[in-house]
Amino acid sequence: MGIDPGLNITGYGVVRVSGGQFQLVEAGVVRSPAKAAIEVRLTEIYSGVVEVIEEHRPDFVALEQLFSHYSRPKTAILMGHARGVICLAAGSAGIPVKSFEPTKVKKVMTGNGHAPKHQMQQAVKLQLNLNEVPEPADVADALSIAICGFHLSHNPLFG
Amino acid sequence: MGIDPGLNITGYGVVRVSGGQFQLVEAGVVRSPAKAAIEVRLTEIYSGVVEVIEEHRPDFVALEQLFSHYSRPKTAILMGHARGVICLAAGSAGIPVKSFEPTKVKKVMTGNGHAPKHQMQQAVKLQLNLNEVPEPADVADALSIAICGFHLSHNPLFG
Repeated sequence: MGIDPGLNITGYGVVRVSGGQFQLVEAGVVRSPAKAAIEVRLTEIYSGVVEVIEEHRPDFVALEQLFSHYSRPKTAILMGHARGVICLAAGSAGIPVKSFEPTKVKKVMTGNGHAPKHQMQQAVKLQLNLNEVPEPADVADALSIAICGFHLSHNPLFG
Repeated sequence: MGIDPGLNITGYGVVRVSGGQFQLVEAGVVRSPAKAAIEVRLTEIYSGVVEVIEEHRPDFVALEQLFSHYSRPKTAILMGHARGVICLAAGSAGIPVKSFEPTKVKKVMTGNGHAPKHQMQQAVKLQLNLNEVPEPADVADALSIAICGFHLSHNPLFG
């Protein structure tokens, strides 16, 4: 399972690997009410993620690693709040969290560590054998982290 | 209840107001195992804070507001993870979170919005009628936010 955390929209994607082929199990977003208090928003995100984790019991939850520099520190810290309750949702269920550098995710998916967004989305579509690019972008991001998480955990060539 | 969130040490302090006088109810720290995975650390922080909230059912949980600038962005985002699960602990229990600007907390406690740490600690000792300055500093910080939260919620002069 891959997750793209955000206080407004958190994308998630669950994939299964069978016979060397990825299959999309479930993907979607958890939205939190924009005007609600932070503790209410985080409660919504947490319960939404817990629900998906309980239903699918993934082997791991994959997230992007924290960067060391952000252009908007306050937004980054709020994302940290969302990421915190997502890690908690995994931890409470006894499921490990794996973090991957964004450039590594891009490199694994496309061969290019600086691949643009549309190239990443095409790679997700291809690997999951989908007819359309998954939308919104948060879902495609979550799926790419899930796929990458599998590759990096199982294939030493990608290490 | 006031909380000073941190991934390593989270300080908390519960105070009661009776006859215009503050009383210390309980204060302490929740430590998380430094070498454990982030999801395990956050689970420890969450369950420690939930325990105190369940025992005392405070009227509100008071935290310092987020700053817009931090010298260490990555540390600030990790603090955001801890702050996130603390907000969740309050939200899950139906208890509102209140945030206060650090300069306002200092101003309310000492009359000086830029009071040094030791002056803040003395103010906490005085207002709670303690024999010693509360330690570690995270506990004193949590107590000052709790006291300040009460003043700013109840006294329009401090608004």
